[in-house]
Amino acid sequence: MAKMTERMKELFNKVPTAVLTTATLDGTPNAVPVGAKKIIDDETILISDQYFNKTLANLKSNPQAAVTFWEGREGYQLKCSITIETQGERYEETAKWIEALGNKAGHPLQSKGAVIFKIKEIYGVSPGPGAGKQLV
Amino acid sequence: MAKMTERMKELFNKVPTAVLTTATLDGTPNAVPVGAKKIIDDETILISDQYFNKTLANLKSNPQAAVTFWEGREGYQLKCSITIETQGERYEETAKWIEALGNKAGHPLQSKGAVIFKIKEIYGVSPGPGAGKQLV
Repeated sequence: MAKMTERMKELFNKVPTAVLTTATLDGTPNAVPVGAKKIIDDETILISDQYFNKTLANLKSNPQAAVTFWEGREGYQLKCSITIETQGERYEETAKWIEALGNKAGHPLQSKGAVIFKIKEIYGVSPGPGAGKQLV
Repeated sequence: MAKMTERMKELFNKVPTAVLTTATLDGTPNAVPVGAKKIIDDETILISDQYFNKTLANLKSNPQAAVTFWEGREGYQLKCSITIETQGERYEETAKWIEALGNKAGHPLQSKGAVIFKIKEIYGVSPGPGAGKQLV
């Protein structure tokens, strides 16, 4: 497992949108923007599934993912293994959180599952000669 | 091949950053933000490689990619096959364009290659019940 630094966590929380990337087992990539994201601890994040389609199919057949986020010229990519929770305490909490987000936004939102990302490696994606360097 | 609509092209040109997603042949995804992007025609885009690392390794071994871009609640994902040009007229033009971008930004930039994306399919990535629907 790899731990996010304080700065990485700060930026992850700050950006409105991260990119969740999956792939089929034979290597067809898929990337979608996600907003319903939170940090569980230094090496774990949670993204709620409201509308996943190909992403969910990929996660079920190939439970690895990358989560990329940036602002300006600073960015990070988390390489993760994933599990999907559709019941239990963490899912119930996620369902309440997403329902509240929907109420705030003025349109109904419903979580179909809590995707839990265990961070295995962290890479920089800032432009420059160090782009793509493994940081953690 | 799939053709972008006028609206898709407008949004692609407008957003400062798109996300270029690749994968290893055994399905490990990789996603990086890219800014040096342009439309060649309705079914072809070009992204210049200044700093690609894992992205380039993936593109060479598995020449398929997704390019995702969005603004607010509107977004698209282009599923593409790719070729890489490191010589010839299109590469030379790209090299000049990137050099000029660097001059404008006040730090040197150099294109290592012009990645040409032929669009095969286009999906919506806007949140909502239609998320992930194939559009073109």
